Amino acid sequence: MISIGIIGLGTVGIGTYKILKEYNSLIKQRTGLDIKVVKIADIDLERNRGLSFKRGILTKDAYEVIDNPNIDIIVELIGGIQPAYDYIVRAIRKKKWVVTANKALLAEKWDEVFKVAEREHCEIGFEASVCGGIPVIRAIRDGLIGNKIHYILGILNGTSNYILTKMTEEDVSFNKALSEAQRLGFAEQDPTLDIEGIDAAHKLCILTRLAFNCSIHMKDIITGGISKIEPIDIGFAKEFGYRIKLLAVAKEEKGMVEVRVEPAMIPVAHPMSTVNGVYNATYVVGDKIGPNLYYGMGAGSDPTGSAVVSDIVDMASRITMKNPRTKVPLSTSEKRIRGGGESSVPYYIRFTAQDRPGVLSKISGILAKYNISISSVIQKGRKENGHVPIVMLTHGAIEKNLKKAKTEIDRSPFIKGESVHIRIEEGNL
Amino acid sequence: MISIGIIGLGTVGIGTYKILKEYNSLIKQRTGLDIKVVKIADIDLERNRGLSFKRGILTKDAYEVIDNPNIDIIVELIGGIQPAYDYIVRAIRKKKWVVTANKALLAEKWDEVFKVAEREHCEIGFEASVCGGIPVIRAIRDGLIGNKIHYILGILNGTSNYILTKMTEEDVSFNKALSEAQRLGFAEQDPTLDIEGIDAAHKLCILTRLAFNCSIHMKDIITGGISKIEPIDIGFAKEFGYRIKLLAVAKEEKGMVEVRVEPAMIPVAHPMSTVNGVYNATYVVGDKIGPNLYYGMGAGSDPTGSAVVSDIVDMASRITMKNPRTKVPLSTSEKRIRGGGESSVPYYIRFTAQDRPGVLSKISGILAKYNISISSVIQKGRKENGHVPIVMLTHGAIEKNLKKAKTEIDRSPFIKGESVHIRIEEGNL
Repeated sequence: MISIGIIGLGTVGIGTYKILKEYNSLIKQRTGLDIKVVKIADIDLERNRGLSFKRGILTKDAYEVIDNPNIDIIVELIGGIQPAYDYIVRAIRKKKWVVTANKALLAEKWDEVFKVAEREHCEIGFEASVCGGIPVIRAIRDGLIGNKIHYILGILNGTSNYILTKMTEEDVSFNKALSEAQRLGFAEQDPTLDIEGIDAAHKLCILTRLAFNCSIHMKDIITGGISKIEPIDIGFAKEFGYRIKLLAVAKEEKGMVEVRVEPAMIPVAHPMSTVNGVYNATYVVGDKIGPNLYYGMGAGSDPTGSAVVSDIVDMASRITMKNPRTKVPLSTSEKRIRGGGESSVPYYIRFTAQDRPGVLSKISGILAKYNISISSVIQKGRKENGHVPIVMLTHGAIEKNLKKAKTEIDRSPFIKGESVHIRIEEGNL
Repeated sequence: MISIGIIGLGTVGIGTYKILKEYNSLIKQRTGLDIKVVKIADIDLERNRGLSFKRGILTKDAYEVIDNPNIDIIVELIGGIQPAYDYIVRAIRKKKWVVTANKALLAEKWDEVFKVAEREHCEIGFEASVCGGIPVIRAIRDGLIGNKIHYILGILNGTSNYILTKMTEEDVSFNKALSEAQRLGFAEQDPTLDIEGIDAAHKLCILTRLAFNCSIHMKDIITGGISKIEPIDIGFAKEFGYRIKLLAVAKEEKGMVEVRVEPAMIPVAHPMSTVNGVYNATYVVGDKIGPNLYYGMGAGSDPTGSAVVSDIVDMASRITMKNPRTKVPLSTSEKRIRGGGESSVPYYIRFTAQDRPGVLSKISGILAKYNISISSVIQKGRKENGHVPIVMLTHGAIEKNLKKAKTEIDRSPFIKGESVHIRIEEGNL
């Protein structure tokens, strides 16, 4: 029997516990392994979770789980950096294998925890940390082992994808879509981590380390959120044949790695453009395998619990042999990280300009000064207040040049307010 | 060092050999494993493959590979039932682990080969047998281990998907699209296995055994091909909001399993409708994880080689510990297989009828007699010869009733030729 201890009985903890209990015999039938939860710690034992537990299985003290000599695998599901980090390190030092869904911890403390794991010959499973139930970690780590990976596109945050989908399909404002997401439980009362791209950046950090075998920190990831996206831009994106998504992008070109999470436009013909609602997806290009896409539910009690269980079973089959994966995923190469100013991609720009002759010529003149050429323009009919939106798609442009040009254009008397620019990710590399 | 012997140096063999050679040190860096190809057998050693080999590595005699005591893993890439079956069984009896891409063999001889593997405590890897490079086998077997799976939709054959995509996008005939596929090397000179759904049925057989843990044989799979699909039906499908795909479907409802490969219509809003060209995809619904989709290249030297390599590395990490997966995927339950006559799904039907009053009423009268009700009808304007297509979508109907109704309608004097019917798979279960 393989004995499991769970720390944290929240959404994912409940899902994990329920699957291990309900499917104990299914898993035994499929793998021959008998996996049992023997101890669960949570600070709140009063809450009614609609579950019944054997006497003595619950505790308020995490160390009763970690220090229990009968437990083989510690499952950390409390989230956040502390005390999760201390718990994990202590568990590994006690030679226990660890499963975690904690993307913030892995993004911030990757090297620290994997170094301890390497020293103690223990393994850390983290399938549930990215894309919930979708087995994208094992796909990249094991399925694509014979590939150099040079491009990842991710829709990694269900909350922001739900909001953008709602804005796209129903032409509503960001605030209205956010309220709806909160009402349905798809967004937290404080939605900052989700809508500002931080949660997606945590996950992209993990995918990039795994796929590119290089060291990436949160500070290397150019991160932007969706709160400033307006319905008008979603509408123009549609006219040009694009969808706006909170897109996590990692590219490697000529040994240079670029990592960013930002709202970006993706062509409707690209499979990532059809990932809607709370769904997540990761698109990975390997040099041998070509493009691959993995799609499914990125969050929720059962889907994320399913990913935790997949790690537990994977470990259980090897733990009795003391046979962990032969290498921990520590960085094997130093690569140069490219900042936002250096790469050249096409952009969407929307100006709000006075509707009079010569304006378009002035705007394009300033753009040309910064080496930015225009691939298409939409200028819509007259508005009552004399201002109209002018929308342009550019050819490949350097971001810092684009920002300078935009600042100069925005200072012109014929421009109203701040102009909007959104990157275009064509989706092939 | 883990020593590999390859039998069969065709498309997939070449891809496998090249990846293992080119990425020997990448794999070592990632996993700590040193994997070397030490022997390769092929009946044709004269062919110029653009590769150079060490002296003595090549042989015409497969048994020189199988019986070599230094080889840990035998990679069977010759395809077909015999002599592949004999090679694999002999290799396992010699306690060698086996990797194969041979879907025909697995579909026909699953129980036989896995029983030998179980007895000898050896493992058989077959990631490359379904969906080429896409790691869908490990996703279902490992990633979804904590799920009951009750629905699989697959686009499992790149050749037929290329042909249908071409017919859909360019409004050309089946024959023209097939010729183009042959010209580009996407279809064999004898394309029967691909276009008649047999190759897809082999693959569906494997997926179903793995996902449903039940015994399925080729004779249980209702199999149809795409050669009778006409552009007119693809056009009407579009008008109704569907795409026609060669769809592999496995469903389990109330303990009854239904398995079929047939051209079917899938709504454009379903992610499977966007899988185009030579791409493959598998859509799997688990009870905990919800829907998952895996998309990528289903064939080709490098993508399929990449899948073979993923199996080799997976095995190599455990082979030195003599620690195979604890269970072979032999059927753990007997389930009833449902035949084609028993399930109820909506259908598309196209009649070619005389354009005169009363025809529609007669057709719908006969359908009603067989308990088939109509959800929508398109009848297009008059044609020069007095015959027009009448197209209907039905509500859920039993296939045998539908066929009876169709036979009766087709006998009517106002109907010309044989009517066409195509299943509709709404894509959610």
